Amino acid sequence: MTPDPLPAEFSLIARHFRPLAGAGALDLGDDAAVLAPPPGRDLVVAADAMVGGVHFLPDDPPDLVARKLLRTNLSDLAAMGAAPLGYLMTVSAPRTTPDAWFAAFAAGLAQDQAEFGVTLLGGDTTSTPGPVSLSLTILGTVAPGEAIRRVGAQPGDLLFVTGTLGDGALGLRAARGEIADPDGYLADRYRLPRPRLGVARHGIVAAALDVSDGLVQDVGHLCRAAGCGAEIRAADLPLSPSARALLPQALTTILTGGDDYELAMAVRPEHAAALRDSAVPVTCIGRFVEGPAHVSVRDADGTEVPVAAGGWSHFA
Amino acid sequence: MTPDPLPAEFSLIARHFRPLAGAGALDLGDDAAVLAPPPGRDLVVAADAMVGGVHFLPDDPPDLVARKLLRTNLSDLAAMGAAPLGYLMTVSAPRTTPDAWFAAFAAGLAQDQAEFGVTLLGGDTTSTPGPVSLSLTILGTVAPGEAIRRVGAQPGDLLFVTGTLGDGALGLRAARGEIADPDGYLADRYRLPRPRLGVARHGIVAAALDVSDGLVQDVGHLCRAAGCGAEIRAADLPLSPSARALLPQALTTILTGGDDYELAMAVRPEHAAALRDSAVPVTCIGRFVEGPAHVSVRDADGTEVPVAAGGWSHFA
Repeated sequence: MTPDPLPAEFSLIARHFRPLAGAGALDLGDDAAVLAPPPGRDLVVAADAMVGGVHFLPDDPPDLVARKLLRTNLSDLAAMGAAPLGYLMTVSAPRTTPDAWFAAFAAGLAQDQAEFGVTLLGGDTTSTPGPVSLSLTILGTVAPGEAIRRVGAQPGDLLFVTGTLGDGALGLRAARGEIADPDGYLADRYRLPRPRLGVARHGIVAAALDVSDGLVQDVGHLCRAAGCGAEIRAADLPLSPSARALLPQALTTILTGGDDYELAMAVRPEHAAALRDSAVPVTCIGRFVEGPAHVSVRDADGTEVPVAAGGWSHFA
Repeated sequence: MTPDPLPAEFSLIARHFRPLAGAGALDLGDDAAVLAPPPGRDLVVAADAMVGGVHFLPDDPPDLVARKLLRTNLSDLAAMGAAPLGYLMTVSAPRTTPDAWFAAFAAGLAQDQAEFGVTLLGGDTTSTPGPVSLSLTILGTVAPGEAIRRVGAQPGDLLFVTGTLGDGALGLRAARGEIADPDGYLADRYRLPRPRLGVARHGIVAAALDVSDGLVQDVGHLCRAAGCGAEIRAADLPLSPSARALLPQALTTILTGGDDYELAMAVRPEHAAALRDSAVPVTCIGRFVEGPAHVSVRDADGTEVPVAAGGWSHFA
């Protein structure tokens, strides 16, 4: 009498996902993970979904898809000023998905787990008649009372952003072959966001979020939470050489396209110097002003740049 | 100058999901939720995905789909002996999904939030070109060291299950119109699992899991973790009147069909009386035995019932 065999699903999980499991994950062999939360810290939790054909292109390399999934969630922690702890993930994939896809997907996660110091805690793998559908829940921690919120800006605050803007949205168009991207820089930025962990720090940043729906819309979130307006100076937008080469046509995409995953932050003027002392470049692109929750963009001579309302929405 | 409008996605979240948000969720308006974990408790976390056409039928009422999603995750906490705390959820739905679908989906969640004492902490809503694709991550807590694992059975332990077996898998066939279900009992059991919170308690239950892949396969998990076998007495399987009416043809489905979400538990004989003192009926259906990790099923006269290997797998 030999032990009963296990179906293929368990083999797939054991080969590809179990090596990613960390402390508390119980080798992914139980119904749940068990972990002792770091004492004296608050938990910070967020979840994001990514769907093939919506958030990534069907031909995107699976390792980059996996890393983007993890990084968009890490970006949420970065916006809250939190440190990452671990993650749970569900993967729904067509039954015909080749084993090599899962292997590459897991390899991407392994790479970023090492880079960001997180491990897989649990999840689920299922089939789907539709495109690959991914969901990831990130767990992090922050000192009690030190989470950075979207609310907290006030008139007179400076508006800072990390890195460069517009590369994500332009990169999507580059990946689709719609615009020139000779060295592939933009497409890489679309496929692999850089979560800006450690930049938004309590006591320095008054309010923050990550720019995922488009700069104007996301700064609008900070305005609505604070009950004030904001003015953005188009000439001060930090742009990569690749994005700058696409001006002036690219300006609307830079202002309203999504997928940047840079941080937008409200900072009291007296804290600006401390913020500039970050590992990541930060740029002041405007300020918060008295008035309704409107975001105006002005060019170098002060003329308002017309911006179509809103950013990306999944539902019309 | 009027405040900038928000796209439809935010309106959808505000109308349907914000009313479900609890303490720490920050009204779903931030990049993440922030919560102080109950001091002196371990965290227990699990995630399950559900896909239209795979885990539920396209015509299933959305409130029942939502409640099944939450309940399958609560069942994972029940198997670990944990108490629920809250959940995060991602919903990917076709762009044409009517508002009434979201309203009914949220109403189902509200109903079960009240029943099980949990609230929504965060998540994401996206479009998909495929079927509705759902993912839920549940957070719970347990006293340190008191989580119940799949490992822990030993030869001589009794095998207990909660409730009745086979209703879920038979209910799927009933919902498809393949078998008779005059009063709709089986289809209801398929659509609405009963998470057995509070039954698997530390000091009484040595090992446990929830029966989601099929009884024989899931008891096999307990056997493999323990390095022993198990014998199930077919005559002692707790069956609903609806399932019993379908014997003997239904026996294979009862033994290997999934979707029961009852608990299978290894219990030392001296703890059986304490286990029976549960709010939910429990039944002893066999015992763990020395030998390889094989699950045998015997009928009333001791003859082994042949059971095809394995249960449900998403990947061939």
